[in-house]
Amino acid sequence: MAAISDLTPTELRRDLHTYPEAGWKEFRTTALVAEELADRGYTVSLGGDAIDVDQRLGVPSADEVEAAEQRARDEDAPEAYLERMDGVTGLVAEKAFGDGPVVGLRVDMDALERPEASDESHYPVSEGFASRHPDEMHACGHDGHTAIGVGVAREIDDGDAFDGTLRVFFQPAEEGGRGGLPMSETEHLTGIDYLFALHLGLDNETGRVVAGYERPLSNAKVDVVFTGESSHAGKAPQAGRNALQAATTAIQNVYAIPRHEDGATRVNVGQVHSPNAQNVISELARMRVEVRGKTAAINEYMLEEVERIVEHAAGMHEVSVETSLYGKTTTFTADEAAVDIVADAARSVEGVTEVARREDIGASEDASYLIERVQELGGNATYVGIGASNPYGHHTARFDIDEASLGIGIDTVAAAIRDC
Amino acid sequence: MAAISDLTPTELRRDLHTYPEAGWKEFRTTALVAEELADRGYTVSLGGDAIDVDQRLGVPSADEVEAAEQRARDEDAPEAYLERMDGVTGLVAEKAFGDGPVVGLRVDMDALERPEASDESHYPVSEGFASRHPDEMHACGHDGHTAIGVGVAREIDDGDAFDGTLRVFFQPAEEGGRGGLPMSETEHLTGIDYLFALHLGLDNETGRVVAGYERPLSNAKVDVVFTGESSHAGKAPQAGRNALQAATTAIQNVYAIPRHEDGATRVNVGQVHSPNAQNVISELARMRVEVRGKTAAINEYMLEEVERIVEHAAGMHEVSVETSLYGKTTTFTADEAAVDIVADAARSVEGVTEVARREDIGASEDASYLIERVQELGGNATYVGIGASNPYGHHTARFDIDEASLGIGIDTVAAAIRDC
Amino acid sequence: MAAISDLTPTELRRDLHTYPEAGWKEFRTTALVAEELADRGYTVSLGGDAIDVDQRLGVPSADEVEAAEQRARDEDAPEAYLERMDGVTGLVAEKAFGDGPVVGLRVDMDALERPEASDESHYPVSEGFASRHPDEMHACGHDGHTAIGVGVAREIDDGDAFDGTLRVFFQPAEEGGRGGLPMSETEHLTGIDYLFALHLGLDNETGRVVAGYERPLSNAKVDVVFTGESSHAGKAPQAGRNALQAATTAIQNVYAIPRHEDGATRVNVGQVHSPNAQNVISELARMRVEVRGKTAAINEYMLEEVERIVEHAAGMHEVSVETSLYGKTTTFTADEAAVDIVADAARSVEGVTEVARREDIGASEDASYLIERVQELGGNATYVGIGASNPYGHHTARFDIDEASLGIGIDTVAAAIRDC
Amino acid sequence: MAAISDLTPTELRRDLHTYPEAGWKEFRTTALVAEELADRGYTVSLGGDAIDVDQRLGVPSADEVEAAEQRARDEDAPEAYLERMDGVTGLVAEKAFGDGPVVGLRVDMDALERPEASDESHYPVSEGFASRHPDEMHACGHDGHTAIGVGVAREIDDGDAFDGTLRVFFQPAEEGGRGGLPMSETEHLTGIDYLFALHLGLDNETGRVVAGYERPLSNAKVDVVFTGESSHAGKAPQAGRNALQAATTAIQNVYAIPRHEDGATRVNVGQVHSPNAQNVISELARMRVEVRGKTAAINEYMLEEVERIVEHAAGMHEVSVETSLYGKTTTFTADEAAVDIVADAARSVEGVTEVARREDIGASEDASYLIERVQELGGNATYVGIGASNPYGHHTARFDIDEASLGIGIDTVAAAIRDC
Repeated sequence: MAAISDLTPTELRRDLHTYPEAGWKEFRTTALVAEELADRGYTVSLGGDAIDVDQRLGVPSADEVEAAEQRARDEDAPEAYLERMDGVTGLVAEKAFGDGPVVGLRVDMDALERPEASDESHYPVSEGFASRHPDEMHACGHDGHTAIGVGVAREIDDGDAFDGTLRVFFQPAEEGGRGGLPMSETEHLTGIDYLFALHLGLDNETGRVVAGYERPLSNAKVDVVFTGESSHAGKAPQAGRNALQAATTAIQNVYAIPRHEDGATRVNVGQVHSPNAQNVISELARMRVEVRGKTAAINEYMLEEVERIVEHAAGMHEVSVETSLYGKTTTFTADEAAVDIVADAARSVEGVTEVARREDIGASEDASYLIERVQELGGNATYVGIGASNPYGHHTARFDIDEASLGIGIDTVAAAIRDC
Repeated sequence: MAAISDLTPTELRRDLHTYPEAGWKEFRTTALVAEELADRGYTVSLGGDAIDVDQRLGVPSADEVEAAEQRARDEDAPEAYLERMDGVTGLVAEKAFGDGPVVGLRVDMDALERPEASDESHYPVSEGFASRHPDEMHACGHDGHTAIGVGVAREIDDGDAFDGTLRVFFQPAEEGGRGGLPMSETEHLTGIDYLFALHLGLDNETGRVVAGYERPLSNAKVDVVFTGESSHAGKAPQAGRNALQAATTAIQNVYAIPRHEDGATRVNVGQVHSPNAQNVISELARMRVEVRGKTAAINEYMLEEVERIVEHAAGMHEVSVETSLYGKTTTFTADEAAVDIVADAARSVEGVTEVARREDIGASEDASYLIERVQELGGNATYVGIGASNPYGHHTARFDIDEASLGIGIDTVAAAIRDC
Repeated sequence: MAAISDLTPTELRRDLHTYPEAGWKEFRTTALVAEELADRGYTVSLGGDAIDVDQRLGVPSADEVEAAEQRARDEDAPEAYLERMDGVTGLVAEKAFGDGPVVGLRVDMDALERPEASDESHYPVSEGFASRHPDEMHACGHDGHTAIGVGVAREIDDGDAFDGTLRVFFQPAEEGGRGGLPMSETEHLTGIDYLFALHLGLDNETGRVVAGYERPLSNAKVDVVFTGESSHAGKAPQAGRNALQAATTAIQNVYAIPRHEDGATRVNVGQVHSPNAQNVISELARMRVEVRGKTAAINEYMLEEVERIVEHAAGMHEVSVETSLYGKTTTFTADEAAVDIVADAARSVEGVTEVARREDIGASEDASYLIERVQELGGNATYVGIGASNPYGHHTARFDIDEASLGIGIDTVAAAIRDC
Repeated sequence: MAAISDLTPTELRRDLHTYPEAGWKEFRTTALVAEELADRGYTVSLGGDAIDVDQRLGVPSADEVEAAEQRARDEDAPEAYLERMDGVTGLVAEKAFGDGPVVGLRVDMDALERPEASDESHYPVSEGFASRHPDEMHACGHDGHTAIGVGVAREIDDGDAFDGTLRVFFQPAEEGGRGGLPMSETEHLTGIDYLFALHLGLDNETGRVVAGYERPLSNAKVDVVFTGESSHAGKAPQAGRNALQAATTAIQNVYAIPRHEDGATRVNVGQVHSPNAQNVISELARMRVEVRGKTAAINEYMLEEVERIVEHAAGMHEVSVETSLYGKTTTFTADEAAVDIVADAARSVEGVTEVARREDIGASEDASYLIERVQELGGNATYVGIGASNPYGHHTARFDIDEASLGIGIDTVAAAIRDC
């Protein structure tokens, strides 16, 4: 492949779309971006310098991560940067252009673990940039986000209208809410005057910009494993310790966690597996639980309820239980100053047809931790929606983005940065 | 009323039927029987001398017991014996006729807590001896059992064919399995060579005798009270501690206790009450659980499962739980020697048309504790079924017994005693 | 007693407090109010003329209603009006003072089914007007509401500043949401220009007025009865049809009804009773379910979920199920014109110290149906909070109201009526 | 490979152990056995001639079956017999030696779907005959059963002491109880005077023979698939149709199916899978249920309960459900005449050290259908246990059989056949 510095944002997005990397596996993506920005004079902090390694959530097994790193190597990721990453993905690139304000931009890089549609009517197929990784796909637009992040870094670098410091966060593992928290717990958040995060699509047509997407539900994902003892269901039913009965009791009670007077709650159970044969008392049941709350406090309430329920479901059936946090996000409200800047900037951008100031973002989002941290330290932040027409839903096999949105995204954010 | 010594067994049975007394309330019954047998020279051990008071199960509130005692007084129970009972029902009457074997007979005295049918087609109504206590009824034949106990004591006393010691146990609180255990834990069980217990009816027509009813299911009854905290279900649903959700979780899991490889199990939940209003999170839920097992060990297994389930159901919903044993029975196998004696005796009795040696008794029965104790101490025991035709089931409002069974019962047992 | 026309509002409130009447039993209250207002020239529509009888919800048994009517007679309710009511409570009183606007006022009259505190520290006890009906109590201030309704009718009648028509709705059975719907389905709602409803207390101190209490949760209460077949839990466990297992399955699933994206939901289960003995498979289980939703549509969603769940819980256990709607409320938003009038009026009233324009009312309220109906027909409506200091919560045994609130309520509403 | 006619029973057993074939995939096994027995003059009925094809249970997908057939071809199964089988496994081989009694012998051929231990301490590994099929293993001794079936056919054919007809049933798909029923529904069961079935091991040491293994629990296995609709658990929780909640409700109620007064019951749930992501309402939940009963009637009771429960669990959550019978067995009592013959025969066999007449077989067994059919038609039948020492349990990775049991099995059965 060509160096990414030779690629337009659209070409870059297509390259990333071709080689999607799921959470904590973004080795090629990180290394390519780092190379170009380092070449441009950005200071690049990689892996453990960009992320609090100990606070990472939902990290795949060491074998899986190593395989992903090797794959990146096989797919021409620059070796020097792979080495600097030392097994950990993520990147913060920073460059000072003057004594003006410190402005952060956060984009996410990870793909989803799902196959992509393979028929010719799917644009990435007909244009030849569909995923070459069987069970990974950029089905949420993060390929575009990364391309915008690079595009903004180029545009600010090439122009002369910004006299502050630009710090771009290329965050890993947004899916599941696994990378935001450990990235927020670094010194890179210090001193930021304005932070922008962004998302393409989200049911907004190309040309629509939401300057202040806000108030996502706080979210937590917990993996639960019940371990019992098997026995023959016909000969000695009482001798087992039934992990499935524990899981079943937990599931019914988890869905029945009381509503909360202070605002919305959500709860769901996914990926339940109890693999024993029919004539064997279940010795293993796995389940993945997700809760949400309007506020971080309500989310904590839900999480504590889940913890207590699974503990006692296990005790009731004399099985053991282990829980582990898979991912977590919080909530935020956009700052008026930041919303103003983005709204004004967007109105000046070619291709922008509608600018909304504030809207509730239904989904959960771990940029929330970076935003919260910036706000705690006195900065202003907002989360920006960049319309990108596409007829299929996020996370589906046929998801795609209107590439016209890439330029709009770059121009809007770059204009906002210059206005800070 | 006349002294009971003037009453035939049938008249006595009718008197007791008229004034039924539920478990631990058998003051009038105990006192009347004690008076007659004391007058005949039997040594009568009453209340705390007949029962291990501390081991009583399922005792009603002190107020209820006191009211029952007062009622007995109002219904002409002999005051001297009421005083000797000191608030505790139950009686052992013993008389030595020679140096021969010690023979025990156990009958039960308590009524059920349910109303009796009131129409003229019900024999006790048409004959004028229906219950005068609105919510109590001899619907299981214990009135007849007591009459047989007295009848046997008279017959042995009046005859000269028995040269041993007769010890008659008039047991309180058989319903629910509450009186057998505390009566078995007394010195009165010591030295018994043969113990007979009996039951009328049980789907046997008049004239049929089962010499060895055996192998009842062991049984335990547990009262469970979950205590949570109420809150307004609309305004603050998360602020409550929902006792009903705890009870519901417990009920579902109690019914799902695993079967046991060593034999039959049973489980049931009765009398569930959660009295909160619709818009209030439940602060209280009561339930009564019953388990059974083919053996005492299986019954213990079921009981331990229930205990663990309710404890964790409570913990799961942050409510407290209290459990108390309401009643308990065990199982037994009849001794061949005792079965032989009864079978032979029955064949000599007028009115007996069929004698079965051994049959499984489906129900549970707390005479099991007395039988178990006698067997442990080296004696022989059996449980005798005395047929008593009646078209309506035990425990129903129209239950009655064919009074011809009383004479058969007295004669069979008396003959067996003489044959010991 | 004296005629109520001789009583001050406070005296009237105390009289009503002494003789509280629960929902659909407000015979004495209705008759007394009707007598005074008829004497003043108001046209009084009673019982079936004030209520759509067929749409009444949660009506007690005929025996209970008849007993309540007889009790009213025994407590000196005017016989002529009792006769006109023909067994149905509720009253609309109307009088025209000129050609001006038609103004409605809705107050509720029913008491709660609960005992009142009996110690001297409870003001109604020390002042001698505590409830003389053992299990009924005005614990929600409706005695005061009725007194205010009468007071306003007097004040408007005695003054000369109002030239429209006043129509006062004395609604029965607000508790549980049983009387609002059938009262809203009458012709009395037609032609109303302004409708005011009101409530004392609700955590507002005396002197505080909320001009536009609004957006209560829609609410529905459903009574559910599962009827199975009993059998002996030890002898024939498979022969029963277990109503308790059906109820338990229903309860667990009812609490687990999915949250709704469009807004808050609530669900609760109260008064669960399954009265079988421990050794009998449950043949009967009763439960009372309550659901709520931010909107009437969400409330319907909850209600449909409950219906489907209980139907299939019954089918699963081969028991039958009957559901009946016990009560229902809807939601509303106060009209700006009505809020303005009340806010302005309140500021002119002596004793008013704070006026709030709009607040969300946490509770549910069946005045909602009257308000909705008036709004559908083109009128304006609001629900007014009249502060009434009291240290104990609504619906508790020690609830009371600061009687100074009565005058404030009368003056505020009367002033608002005059300003329409 | 050599023709199997050149192999000793032990060599044959090892060959079959090397190439294990799971239920309905026994192409190589069937073809090899058919070839030898046809060569010996036995009439061989293959595939659809040995089995009622329409009544087969738990048949794998057409692709899987076809792949198994191709594998057999690749592993030198005789093509002529593969062709005659036409995609269906199973064989009945019959030969008449005179006008004497018709004697049946039923052996099963299928392997389990599980990997075999691979270390040298496992005898099949050290001797070089461990499974070459990664996920299949003869872990229940059916390789030995088939070898015994062939051995008996040879011994009777080679000797001259039997003047009747021998009919050997080589049954497919015993695991799960899938092949017995369809084999029993053929004309081959007609006219049988004596039927023997057998099993190696079952906790009997080599040298022990049980002449009348009997009274297995009846058994049924049902596959259940709930299909709902997914939706985003955060954005539109009410829009899904939750297959997991349906499954959970079903599981809890299935475990709680009432015990039965007529005898033992069992129930278990295995292989529960609900594969949705945490933030997606479950659209799919699969589970496999197994029930058992002391009698076929009790088993039917359990099966009907399961069917009704899953149907209503689905209805409750508005999901669809499909159930399919995966396997089924019934129960039987051995005939005294057949037990006598086997017991007498076993005592004459070298290596037999202990002969038990009748024992309860704890497991379930689909030879029961063949036995039941023979008994219905007037023949005598028994199920024979042939001791085979092995320190590891049936169905485990290290299961093996003491090959000395093969000769004992052949000699015992052959002697019994000669004695018929």
